Amino acid sequence: MAAEKTMEKIVSLSKSRGFIFPGSEIYGGLANTWDYGPLGVELKNNVKKAWWKKFIQESPYNVGVDCAILMNPQVWVASGHVGGFSDPLMDCKSCKSRFRADKLIEDYQQSIGQEPHVGGWSNQDMMNYIRENNIKCPECGAFDWTDIRQFNLMFKTYQGVTEDSKAQVYLRPETAQGIFVNFKNVLRTTRKKLPFGIGQIGKSFRNEITPGNFIFRTREFEQMELEFFCKPGEDLEWFNYWKNFCKNWLLNLGMKEENIRLRDHEKEELSHYSNATTDIEYKFPFGWGELWGIADRTDFDLKQHINHSGEDLVYFDPEINEKLVPYCIEPSVGADRVLLAFLIDAYDEEQLEDGDVRTVLRFHPALAPFKAAVLPLSKKLADGAKEVYAELAKDFMVDYDETGSIGKRYRRQDEIGTPFCITFDFDSLNDKMVTVRDRDTMQQVRIPIEEVKNYINERMKF
Amino acid sequence: MAAEKTMEKIVSLSKSRGFIFPGSEIYGGLANTWDYGPLGVELKNNVKKAWWKKFIQESPYNVGVDCAILMNPQVWVASGHVGGFSDPLMDCKSCKSRFRADKLIEDYQQSIGQEPHVGGWSNQDMMNYIRENNIKCPECGAFDWTDIRQFNLMFKTYQGVTEDSKAQVYLRPETAQGIFVNFKNVLRTTRKKLPFGIGQIGKSFRNEITPGNFIFRTREFEQMELEFFCKPGEDLEWFNYWKNFCKNWLLNLGMKEENIRLRDHEKEELSHYSNATTDIEYKFPFGWGELWGIADRTDFDLKQHINHSGEDLVYFDPEINEKLVPYCIEPSVGADRVLLAFLIDAYDEEQLEDGDVRTVLRFHPALAPFKAAVLPLSKKLADGAKEVYAELAKDFMVDYDETGSIGKRYRRQDEIGTPFCITFDFDSLNDKMVTVRDRDTMQQVRIPIEEVKNYINERMKF
Repeated sequence: MAAEKTMEKIVSLSKSRGFIFPGSEIYGGLANTWDYGPLGVELKNNVKKAWWKKFIQESPYNVGVDCAILMNPQVWVASGHVGGFSDPLMDCKSCKSRFRADKLIEDYQQSIGQEPHVGGWSNQDMMNYIRENNIKCPECGAFDWTDIRQFNLMFKTYQGVTEDSKAQVYLRPETAQGIFVNFKNVLRTTRKKLPFGIGQIGKSFRNEITPGNFIFRTREFEQMELEFFCKPGEDLEWFNYWKNFCKNWLLNLGMKEENIRLRDHEKEELSHYSNATTDIEYKFPFGWGELWGIADRTDFDLKQHINHSGEDLVYFDPEINEKLVPYCIEPSVGADRVLLAFLIDAYDEEQLEDGDVRTVLRFHPALAPFKAAVLPLSKKLADGAKEVYAELAKDFMVDYDETGSIGKRYRRQDEIGTPFCITFDFDSLNDKMVTVRDRDTMQQVRIPIEEVKNYINERMKF
Repeated sequence: MAAEKTMEKIVSLSKSRGFIFPGSEIYGGLANTWDYGPLGVELKNNVKKAWWKKFIQESPYNVGVDCAILMNPQVWVASGHVGGFSDPLMDCKSCKSRFRADKLIEDYQQSIGQEPHVGGWSNQDMMNYIRENNIKCPECGAFDWTDIRQFNLMFKTYQGVTEDSKAQVYLRPETAQGIFVNFKNVLRTTRKKLPFGIGQIGKSFRNEITPGNFIFRTREFEQMELEFFCKPGEDLEWFNYWKNFCKNWLLNLGMKEENIRLRDHEKEELSHYSNATTDIEYKFPFGWGELWGIADRTDFDLKQHINHSGEDLVYFDPEINEKLVPYCIEPSVGADRVLLAFLIDAYDEEQLEDGDVRTVLRFHPALAPFKAAVLPLSKKLADGAKEVYAELAKDFMVDYDETGSIGKRYRRQDEIGTPFCITFDFDSLNDKMVTVRDRDTMQQVRIPIEEVKNYINERMKF
């Protein structure tokens, strides 16, 4: 029977092996911020590279952009974030604790064995439900609530040398708007015809009242978003295309199908402008959680910006000789969150024949922080082994380890997910061959040193 | 004679070909913010990849991290940023314009033909100089100054649901502190011995009063910083090592040596804790400007954090069986700024034999946004050409263009710096060969399709 995967184990391994550390740790941290360590940064870079490779580099449709985090505040008026991007908060008058009303209801529904179903409710709906079900303060048990107020989730800051309101700007709460705002710039400078997409990877910030579950929900996070523009009427076809594309990206990178599910949003849950929305969810140790949102946003965003900016954000269709406002499909995924899913999915405790248990991260080679570790059988072989290391390091991240028994070194690499251990032994000096040990099967093959690079590169493909 | 490189030409090409757009442009922009377009994002990614490859991946000394932008405010007390990271500002009482006193003096010194020399001056020194030289307001000509006041450059924001001072946090003004704060985490989770380094790439924010010169100085920018730890006494040796390493990185990526100079800081210019500092400067069209700061920061930063956090940020030296606080060498470069230098350096207007002038960006192939463009000689050849495109796109960014004459398409690729144009012609269908045209020499060679990938990969090495 497989050992249970708990968040405790994942967090502990992340910290002990250098994947993810608590942010500002020596100063007591800062509310759910996290720093990626030497292995974590490689894993995250690999996740981002894998997205870019499939969504931009290999795509005949898409191009990339990288927009500023600080944008003109009018952008957030147009996008609806100034008016509507808020959480419904309420305070317990008795103990002064503050809660998200929707979370309060969700937790209540789960506690009585129901699937949470609060999506799309108004503040009044929620208030009524809380009253009818007599939901009490989880902190002090009182039933003494304030009204529900909307709390905007955007981080504010001030730029320039005076702190007057003119200079107030926001940290972007999503990367998507940078794309819409540059729609015309991209049209003008590329030879793109519909359908085409614009993708972006970058940091976003949301002042969540309840961040948590490790890197699942953090106030500072990195998004990988695509806005894919197509003709009205072809949107649902492309919606399905990208839904499958995203799912296959996960599967091709080794994520287990049984840990993924697609959840189509119900009519009442859909935004008023959306034709369809599906979440790809992952089975986290704390329950199913949203991984990837794929939404058919119709022409809502471009039209909002046309109305607010006065710019003609349209596409001239040469086939019908007319201007049109394209529809847009948005697959949006958090880099930190999908990294967490890959980390959990890869985690395994394997019972070995000799009774030992080994911890192994079964990352796809494309995602593994180190693609290989070069291990000299003896410290006397360091010169030759370091030559192999230096040659491989020109192509990808490689570890080098000459400390401890070879068995211990294998375990160390298993635990950080290195797919290939390359042992340089005394014969290697003469026959120019090394032993390559596979992380998952623990099988060993002996191959010429000059073929190692190719051997690994072939296995990194996805 | 080579045509003059002006900022106007660089900014204009950047905008017209999709390298760099003004940020939030459809809303009138936002004070010197910039968005990278489809070509710019690739160029920037390549700059960052090239840094990571040489400073982290291939380095036997260094590892990477990726820390949060939002840190515990105590970090900035310890680093000295809360107390001392400020600009000296003064207002003209007559017209209410605001200036940086040091910039005012620099501009004055340049206007009378002197090299600017205001580094290390106190506010009193600057005030005296302004009085003695009767430096007037550049806006209105009055001599009616306020005193000089220090204005802190850190962006402030508030996290959590109340805007009280407890929740005030800063956007990091540099990535370096994330490294110092994680010094012990990295020591604990890697097998590193002195000397070793920790590198990071990430966004930083400085509320500069006078951002400008395109992407040379922006409030939001991306840094590539290395903190290299060594034993006290070995610091100047390593300082020289990294100074040369940085310079060679630029030269190996094709930057022209005549456009680079090294400027050692004078004693009076050095921070009190620094043993040595050198700027690598680039000859921008607006004058020599700092590109890369390499500083020997001794044990200043670690000791500050030891004092403020109470944590024992030391290294146990097994050779002498004693604890020590390592010294630190910091090579710090802005990704946007060095990208601008590469862009300017690559820009060329070449007079051709037929009298024509071609604009060409002579990027090193490792930096070029597209490594190759696949050009079918006729639209009838699209199927075969697209197969070549799809195969190459698995390895790197490739453009595909079937519009216009072949000569026009070559020029288009020259102007965006694509090093190789691959022409697929009617013979290609039978002989499985293509013509590869070199951007710089305009020479053409015919090679088998299956060798194209290798041909390009070889030339991307640096």
